[in-house]
Amino acid sequence: MLLSKSFVPILKNNPSEAKIKSHQLMLRVGMIKQASAGIYSWLPLGFKVMKKIEDIVRQEQNKIGAQEILMPTIQSSDIWKESGRYEDYGEEMLRIKDRQNREMLYGPTNEEQITEIFRSSLKSYKSLPQLLYHIQWKFRDEIRPRFGIMRGREFYMKDAYSFDVSDEQAFYSYNKFFLSYLRTFKRLELTAIPMAADTGPIGGNLSHEFVILADTGESKIFTDKRIFDLNSNDTELEKNSLQLMRKKYENYYSVTDEKFNKEEFEKVVSEKNRLITKGIEVGHIFYFGDKYSKAMGASVDLPGGKKDFVKMGSYGIGVSRLVGAIIEAKYDDKNEIMKWPLSVAPYDIALIPMINKNDTSALDKAITIYNELSKNNIDALIDDTEENFSSKIKKMNLIGAPYQIIIGKKSDGDLFEFKEIGKETKNLSLIKIVEIIKKQKILN
Amino acid sequence: MLLSKSFVPILKNNPSEAKIKSHQLMLRVGMIKQASAGIYSWLPLGFKVMKKIEDIVRQEQNKIGAQEILMPTIQSSDIWKESGRYEDYGEEMLRIKDRQNREMLYGPTNEEQITEIFRSSLKSYKSLPQLLYHIQWKFRDEIRPRFGIMRGREFYMKDAYSFDVSDEQAFYSYNKFFLSYLRTFKRLELTAIPMAADTGPIGGNLSHEFVILADTGESKIFTDKRIFDLNSNDTELEKNSLQLMRKKYENYYSVTDEKFNKEEFEKVVSEKNRLITKGIEVGHIFYFGDKYSKAMGASVDLPGGKKDFVKMGSYGIGVSRLVGAIIEAKYDDKNEIMKWPLSVAPYDIALIPMINKNDTSALDKAITIYNELSKNNIDALIDDTEENFSSKIKKMNLIGAPYQIIIGKKSDGDLFEFKEIGKETKNLSLIKIVEIIKKQKILN
Repeated sequence: MLLSKSFVPILKNNPSEAKIKSHQLMLRVGMIKQASAGIYSWLPLGFKVMKKIEDIVRQEQNKIGAQEILMPTIQSSDIWKESGRYEDYGEEMLRIKDRQNREMLYGPTNEEQITEIFRSSLKSYKSLPQLLYHIQWKFRDEIRPRFGIMRGREFYMKDAYSFDVSDEQAFYSYNKFFLSYLRTFKRLELTAIPMAADTGPIGGNLSHEFVILADTGESKIFTDKRIFDLNSNDTELEKNSLQLMRKKYENYYSVTDEKFNKEEFEKVVSEKNRLITKGIEVGHIFYFGDKYSKAMGASVDLPGGKKDFVKMGSYGIGVSRLVGAIIEAKYDDKNEIMKWPLSVAPYDIALIPMINKNDTSALDKAITIYNELSKNNIDALIDDTEENFSSKIKKMNLIGAPYQIIIGKKSDGDLFEFKEIGKETKNLSLIKIVEIIKKQKILN
Repeated sequence: MLLSKSFVPILKNNPSEAKIKSHQLMLRVGMIKQASAGIYSWLPLGFKVMKKIEDIVRQEQNKIGAQEILMPTIQSSDIWKESGRYEDYGEEMLRIKDRQNREMLYGPTNEEQITEIFRSSLKSYKSLPQLLYHIQWKFRDEIRPRFGIMRGREFYMKDAYSFDVSDEQAFYSYNKFFLSYLRTFKRLELTAIPMAADTGPIGGNLSHEFVILADTGESKIFTDKRIFDLNSNDTELEKNSLQLMRKKYENYYSVTDEKFNKEEFEKVVSEKNRLITKGIEVGHIFYFGDKYSKAMGASVDLPGGKKDFVKMGSYGIGVSRLVGAIIEAKYDDKNEIMKWPLSVAPYDIALIPMINKNDTSALDKAITIYNELSKNNIDALIDDTEENFSSKIKKMNLIGAPYQIIIGKKSDGDLFEFKEIGKETKNLSLIKIVEIIKKQKILN
């Protein structure tokens, strides 16, 4: 893609209304544009990143056997009255009257809707477990939307729901999502820590928040540092292995604000391992048993002939928020350098030719390189503008493609100035460059 | 996928509330589930089809150089007041007040929103042309939603917008979309005819509807039959070639109701070539010049130093509606046999083993075949239930995977009963079957 033809409206300076670095960067390089308070349009650069995150989330849901569906954004108030949450939910719920004066709402979450779908579709334990998910826009009418897409009103979320015949089976489903979340965030190059959390308006008594550390986070967290050294690399999608994995994590104290107990914290965590800091919630999982199935009458026939209410959990990942969370984690705002994980970068590589009015040879060379990269499924952005070299570099450092090739007049032979952001420049052949990027892509 | 584990709630009989065959079939095989009047959830089978249609639409938009963005579903009323459409749009617009009592609305279309994005982003003719599109949920508060997802309230649509410096350039953009629409519908195995159409609430004086023939269609159409023999196979993405293509189509009389003139029709179309019938609108393109850019002040600097309002067009495809339109075109409701185009089929092939309580050898064989197909990226659905054979066939004929393999006890050797829906059964080796399907997939 030629930068001059792409819809990437870049600002010279940080917009003054943006207080945190993800909001600054996203406005600065034209990833998003505000439509109204807490509501944004996603321009090509932002859209590409969000779409890649969505695909990774989707792949990891599919890997644990979850099936994708899509529920509508507008729901009837009837099902919320059945569950008893219509009044409870408060003003964050965007309530709507349609032309027939029916009470509708823009879904902030989908426990009621999915329970309604389940109860009218399946009747037997033989069809269980069922793991269903969708990726859809949601709306929460925040009183003070802020921090760009981090706390917006219209936001994109993956929410999944599990249906099981017993608590024991339901914990197995819960643990599958626990694992898929660890894997998802790892592929996004984020260290997300599962923390015991409050269940809030969703309900239930088992819940984990997945939190990444960031000064700008709104969650206060209390952990045993050693939890950061854990991983799920050896965990298999099998009951015992999953149980061991969860135990391993739960061995270390790690809670959010609402669950914090000072006395306990100081008792179980030695002083040198204590970490009290801030983080960004990127995922949240809940087990609430028959809270909704009982209220809404979603039961299944059991093997012996009896009936029981189906046991449910729900599992959310903030897809649009993750775009901001990755920036908060990766953007060096002092030096104005962003490096996207290759798995979600808007472009794999930036080609920066030095162009003079009377000499387009560097641009021609860039186009030749572009074509060769395309053949290898490497997505490049060429800066074909006539700006001076240093402002080109500055711009590309903000856009954040993880690799760059600088094409000056000197680049005559077969070697090019190649750079991975944050590392030294090397002189490499195009074949070698393609090899490095392809190798990195396979790791994602 | 095993049918017993998949979320495919099949009904024994046609639901009585459904009047047209797409609505009947979609409820019957659990592709959708009504959430409230004119609002549907998409279950796995329906979701898969819609997603594949979306991907084809996306690919064809990208091929003409359109860039993908994503605008929000909720818009501010301010921009609609600027364009003058806020009052005009009538009750089909779902108007919303947020908790701060601001007037918002659920977007029924996005001319205002995109014009606002453009005017605050680009200022020079040098950035033109720009073709931007998004695929997003929209809402029209129909007084009488009906026919399932064909005339629902919440619907999924691709809408694109073009920005050009002159009428001449804008017609070039218009023709690019014209071609991409012909190509898109062809890949969906639909014969969609472009018809001169009214511009309605969008405005402008040049417009084409793309219509497929169907008795259940709500558009009345008047054409010269010979237009059905045209194609765009030789058209290239180049100004003159595109102009010739459009001329070729416009040579034949082809209009919708509002544009119909009896006298002219009978004058230019000989009696034997006249066709008066019904159709389903699946796409609609508009050229409206500076209607919105003037009202909202979206101008660009021209080469000479002057400014002018940017020339715009808009281009819609009903993605969710296409699921129904394909069923209307392909479903044999007398014999209850659906055959999806392979390009959008929920599964490529159905495996139908004959299973007895005491003998699972056919199921084992089905699983072996499944694994071999998976390796070749062929997506199969196994009916692992213990229903009798004829009801299994009946079910799979409704689900509509275009190919079937029947696995009885007799299937001992290397040959399997293979069938393309609507054709004769053949005894073929698995290698041969894989070859046939892969060959067909490449054609899409």
